[in-house]
Amino acid sequence: MSDSLAVIAILGGTGDLGTGLARRWAQAGYQVIIGSRTEDKAVAAAADLKAVMQARGIDGVNVRAMENLAAAEAADICAMTVPFAHQTGTLELVKEALKGKILIDVTVPLVPPKVARVQLPEQGSAGQIAQQILGEDVQVVSAFQNVAAHHLQEGQGLSCDVIVCGDKKDARAKVIELVEAAGMRGFHGGSIANSAATEALTSVLIFINKQYGCHAGISITGLDDKA
Amino acid sequence: MSDSLAVIAILGGTGDLGTGLARRWAQAGYQVIIGSRTEDKAVAAAADLKAVMQARGIDGVNVRAMENLAAAEAADICAMTVPFAHQTGTLELVKEALKGKILIDVTVPLVPPKVARVQLPEQGSAGQIAQQILGEDVQVVSAFQNVAAHHLQEGQGLSCDVIVCGDKKDARAKVIELVEAAGMRGFHGGSIANSAATEALTSVLIFINKQYGCHAGISITGLDDKA
Repeated sequence: MSDSLAVIAILGGTGDLGTGLARRWAQAGYQVIIGSRTEDKAVAAAADLKAVMQARGIDGVNVRAMENLAAAEAADICAMTVPFAHQTGTLELVKEALKGKILIDVTVPLVPPKVARVQLPEQGSAGQIAQQILGEDVQVVSAFQNVAAHHLQEGQGLSCDVIVCGDKKDARAKVIELVEAAGMRGFHGGSIANSAATEALTSVLIFINKQYGCHAGISITGLDDKA
Repeated sequence: MSDSLAVIAILGGTGDLGTGLARRWAQAGYQVIIGSRTEDKAVAAAADLKAVMQARGIDGVNVRAMENLAAAEAADICAMTVPFAHQTGTLELVKEALKGKILIDVTVPLVPPKVARVQLPEQGSAGQIAQQILGEDVQVVSAFQNVAAHHLQEGQGLSCDVIVCGDKKDARAKVIELVEAAGMRGFHGGSIANSAATEALTSVLIFINKQYGCHAGISITGLDDKA
């Protein structure tokens, strides 16, 4: 396990999606901090993560448990997997701690109960909301909205691509490295405004899952078809 | 060629995307009407279509050329492939002729010059604009926004799926038949509000095309992974 790998905090990391990302990155050798609103929940999730890794034959994973703010302060890079209703509050809480860092925003603006219906916010997307709240000192990159948590939690390969959106190409490139470390292909998807596409697609995939009884994702085709 | 196949009009059918759809459906044996703002342009496009079909060894394709309104009146089902700036005007023109029919809206709300940036309209999507203008007497189904015109125009197979959105399941199912006739897989994508996802994705694919030098599309994965 290399010390040169980034320390990744997953804010709201005790849910299905956060658990999936934590498993993928821990398995890839990253130091992972599970962040939660309460330290107790984070401690339980970290213990579970260690147990799952041991069951997979992986010992000595580097995982810690903290409250969200402490997690954001201790990390080199943060991912956030909270429900849309908690996005703004969590961002306000950790805003100062994120300065100079990349925030991987996985928020999808689902509006229950109609989660299979696209209902984008007036700002355009959750990614844009995050960038507006955090300002220019934080590089918001959105990703992972179209990956089934179910698949992330498993140890094997994933047939789902990840479109990565953010205003800075370098920041997108760093997140694409983390996508690849998690076992998927990542693609530059353009500015944070383009997060509207991936966020909206989540509702479509929820609809497809209900309609066809599956765990759908997307793949980019035509890459070998040179322009 | 079966007489029972629907007569399909392609409004704004002289552009790249309309030309591609016309070729696919003509080749599948459908009666195709090329609609345009001027009959001359439609006549030229129809002649070109016949020539391309003959070059592929397909004789006797049933293709006619008309102005958009006459085309909409003569068709069983209409597809519309006009630039976003012409969507409202074209819809107002053909509104009465579409009553009781399905309109396949292929409009993507690109706002030049930044076509690689998602800029959805305040109504949510071009599909919702169409449904609002046409009212309940017309079943608006959006589709084909993510297929490269370049690929549609070719005769061979296509590695791109089509997400089909509309408020009525029966209308979506009919459009999925036409997607399959054009050589692709079609998927129920939910209500017309969900067209925001496929429309936004077009800008992301334009970005990917520029970034990776390709003609990208999407494919739905995970269908065999039963929930």
